[in-house]
Amino acid sequence: MVVEMEVNNGENTTNNWVPIMKKLHMNVIGEKMKKFPKLTCRTIWRVGKEDPRRVIHSLKVGISLTLVSLLYLMDPLFKGFGSNAIWAVMTVVVVLEFTAGATLCKGLNRGLGTLLAGSLAFLIEYVATKTGHVFRAIFIGAALFFIGATATYMRFIPYIKKNYDYGVVIFLLTFNLITVSSYRVDNVLKIAHERFYTISIGCGICLLMSLLIFPNWSGEDLHNFTAAKFEGLAKSIEACVNEYFSDEEQQKTKENSSDLEDPIYNGYKTVLDSKSFDETLALYASWEPRHSRHCYRFPRQQYVKLGNVLRHFGYTIVALHGCLQTEIQTPRSVRAMFKDPCIRLSGEVAKALKELGDSIRYRRHCSPEILSDHLHEALHDLNKAIKSQPKLFIGSKNNTNKLTLATVVSKGQSGALNSRRVSLSSVKTDTSALLDWKSKLRGGSSTTHENLKLRPTLSKIAITSLEFSEALPFAAFASLLVEIVARLDLVIDEVEELGRIAHFKEYNDDDEHHVVVEIDEKNSRPLPNQLPTRDSGD
Amino acid sequence: MVVEMEVNNGENTTNNWVPIMKKLHMNVIGEKMKKFPKLTCRTIWRVGKEDPRRVIHSLKVGISLTLVSLLYLMDPLFKGFGSNAIWAVMTVVVVLEFTAGATLCKGLNRGLGTLLAGSLAFLIEYVATKTGHVFRAIFIGAALFFIGATATYMRFIPYIKKNYDYGVVIFLLTFNLITVSSYRVDNVLKIAHERFYTISIGCGICLLMSLLIFPNWSGEDLHNFTAAKFEGLAKSIEACVNEYFSDEEQQKTKENSSDLEDPIYNGYKTVLDSKSFDETLALYASWEPRHSRHCYRFPRQQYVKLGNVLRHFGYTIVALHGCLQTEIQTPRSVRAMFKDPCIRLSGEVAKALKELGDSIRYRRHCSPEILSDHLHEALHDLNKAIKSQPKLFIGSKNNTNKLTLATVVSKGQSGALNSRRVSLSSVKTDTSALLDWKSKLRGGSSTTHENLKLRPTLSKIAITSLEFSEALPFAAFASLLVEIVARLDLVIDEVEELGRIAHFKEYNDDDEHHVVVEIDEKNSRPLPNQLPTRDSGD
Repeated sequence: MVVEMEVNNGENTTNNWVPIMKKLHMNVIGEKMKKFPKLTCRTIWRVGKEDPRRVIHSLKVGISLTLVSLLYLMDPLFKGFGSNAIWAVMTVVVVLEFTAGATLCKGLNRGLGTLLAGSLAFLIEYVATKTGHVFRAIFIGAALFFIGATATYMRFIPYIKKNYDYGVVIFLLTFNLITVSSYRVDNVLKIAHERFYTISIGCGICLLMSLLIFPNWSGEDLHNFTAAKFEGLAKSIEACVNEYFSDEEQQKTKENSSDLEDPIYNGYKTVLDSKSFDETLALYASWEPRHSRHCYRFPRQQYVKLGNVLRHFGYTIVALHGCLQTEIQTPRSVRAMFKDPCIRLSGEVAKALKELGDSIRYRRHCSPEILSDHLHEALHDLNKAIKSQPKLFIGSKNNTNKLTLATVVSKGQSGALNSRRVSLSSVKTDTSALLDWKSKLRGGSSTTHENLKLRPTLSKIAITSLEFSEALPFAAFASLLVEIVARLDLVIDEVEELGRIAHFKEYNDDDEHHVVVEIDEKNSRPLPNQLPTRDSGD
Repeated sequence: MVVEMEVNNGENTTNNWVPIMKKLHMNVIGEKMKKFPKLTCRTIWRVGKEDPRRVIHSLKVGISLTLVSLLYLMDPLFKGFGSNAIWAVMTVVVVLEFTAGATLCKGLNRGLGTLLAGSLAFLIEYVATKTGHVFRAIFIGAALFFIGATATYMRFIPYIKKNYDYGVVIFLLTFNLITVSSYRVDNVLKIAHERFYTISIGCGICLLMSLLIFPNWSGEDLHNFTAAKFEGLAKSIEACVNEYFSDEEQQKTKENSSDLEDPIYNGYKTVLDSKSFDETLALYASWEPRHSRHCYRFPRQQYVKLGNVLRHFGYTIVALHGCLQTEIQTPRSVRAMFKDPCIRLSGEVAKALKELGDSIRYRRHCSPEILSDHLHEALHDLNKAIKSQPKLFIGSKNNTNKLTLATVVSKGQSGALNSRRVSLSSVKTDTSALLDWKSKLRGGSSTTHENLKLRPTLSKIAITSLEFSEALPFAAFASLLVEIVARLDLVIDEVEELGRIAHFKEYNDDDEHHVVVEIDEKNSRPLPNQLPTRDSGD
């Protein structure tokens, strides 16, 4: 309104627009600027709160830098190393990483690269010194070209890329520095010596800091992250099945909230996207020494394998979630008949997943009763419920004689159906339930139309084609649920294998209670966005 | 046998074992050593063959290094820059990356980091010079600690980590180098100047090499990679549905071959694991200048979004693939009844996916008839086929009166069934097919038992529970297939959106033929293991 008035008062409308728009724009920017410090502060605070180890790591880097700069700042030390002390500072900045494994990986890669490059550079230097000045320059240039191209090409080989990429870069760097310097400086050997010592000092400080003072182990992170995945999956399954059988009103409010806050999606998202995170952590873990009390080798491959199995388990949950979002839906009245066994089944699966997660978290074998009788029972009940409703699987648009047949079946079956309902303490009486159900069955085809929230383009495929048997989507849902139970078995196998390799302690029923308290503290740790950086420079 | 005889001839059996075992072990190692050079050569050859741009990039790095080393090797140039020329070499080694975007990202990060660090270092230098010698050392130490800790902490903030991680490392590095050197060297300003010039020269050579000489664009890679994904998915769906309806013998031979060679798995694997690859490429693409003929902004966000949608599409294929691997299977005789519409449906979906992939590859809008009438027809036929077989959905272990009912239904239906079979040009006569089908139906529960390759632990859940209605797994399969068609629509939407944003050219029917030839050449390019390295150092 303000804008409009100003425009009307002005003489030249088009010219007036520009400053007004600018003013508005400035206001928006001003608003943003006002909010910016607050937002920044909140972000900074949250980063530290999410994982306090980050604050400790930052302090560790600060301390290491101060320590290493003493080489330069203190006179007696400076006399020993001279200006080469700068390489120690450089090494600390580049090598000191968040986890011990990453630091070791980088440190050893750097050491190896430097050593190899040094040797090769001296070999070339040895050949070059025997020739004249001009020829020497050409020889060095050619060597640089050849080694540079070869080393770069090597970095494309998957094995080297995965394990020694940083080492090759450092090799190339050091080789170039030494070879080029050797052309101008006479006593290259002395420089190389001093440089090697200072780099060693830098690496030593880094290792001391990352291995001995509040160490963060990649293996530990991988372990906790794996345990946390199970909880996410358990939550997803429960939420998914509950939502499938929830009332329509509830679902609509959920649809309004964004996808990001969806508990189902949040639960499995971390698992699906965990591949590169898992592999990076496992790679760093492979560099870590055996630090646990028992000095067992960290079974990183098994964690990666378990991660793969969990990801495959997750894909089934995504498909299950897809059943909720699909355009063709089984009417709620029909679904309601299977509500109880499905919800019990999902509850049992979630319980088993949580138990598996706990068993990993506390490094113990999982309970022998992990596949409880309740799970078995729920599966059995679901089976019975499906078998008792054959008529559902007759399409909604069948001709009359089939429908009559279906009614005959339903009459024969209604007794059994209702006795189940009563046993599940349904509030409805037998007769009303039967009538209700029948009317729903007859009105089925129109219900389907209402549920079909077809988007415009989909209508190309013609709506009629999508009027499959009403129960088909539910059959898919049930089948996926059973598939989840079957895959749970694979997951249990891998967890047991992990327990065997990692020498988890035996399951003890008494442990259950006094460990529960620790969960909250440990739970908050392994988050995927604290991925140890692989992209830092030298 | 040789080992055993030698053991028997020897006097001290246990002592003899060690050298024999060593010998055997040596033989194995010897074998491996012999194979090693051959394997290495093959790997090196394959890396270059997979993507010839890698060879070009390696040569580019070699040339750049030689060029930059001229600063040091040629006398007139060396007099200008002095030993600081080494920084140019360093910059080239670190900044020159495979794609233009990655080089720009690193180069600009490096430049920005160096500039910021230089300014801050001079500020601190300015304060420090006014104090005494000892206090100055303490002041510098404190500054190092504070800046080091702060910068490290900043790297944990997701936004900075994603975009400026390398810049922060370079900032920290340069700041430390300048601050520490300033304590010993008087004319820091001159050093900083020279260093800045040489780094600029290094960056200049890198940019020249990566932007002007055979440039590799991240955006281009992302584009081709996205197009290739569609083909993978299309192959997966076709292979999956074909395998589901294939004969049992064929399937068994397939089970023997490893999972890695599975065409279904290979097709969707790349799509599922593409998240981090897509995002890295998109990040680098965001740094690239508008290089295409029309200078349109590269719609990287849309590519990432399309990648997400494709990944979700892929999850449904994984679930479909799961139907092939699950323990509970619909008998092949039953499946065969739905073979024709399912295979046609999958063929149409695959065709649509290929068309979408091609439309992206050649930057044109996709054909308006992408959802062909054939697809519609196949969907319709599948619907009809399912509706005509209501009896299938009656469980295999029903009590007798239900079974009789089922038989009644089947008798009533057999006419319709057989007429369908004939229309599908089945070789069996009506009667034999009916008998065959009936015997299968009656022997259903035993067939299911044979198919149930239950692993020991699963037996806890009790086999009986898993004897769901035989048709349930097929219902899931069909439902997932329909779901795939529904999701195809979402994919088409995103592709159309991409075409709109990226100003693809209009669809022209004549284009179809003369572009086909190009496919093979271009097809081999975008492979996920040529991910531009984010973990190289300085």
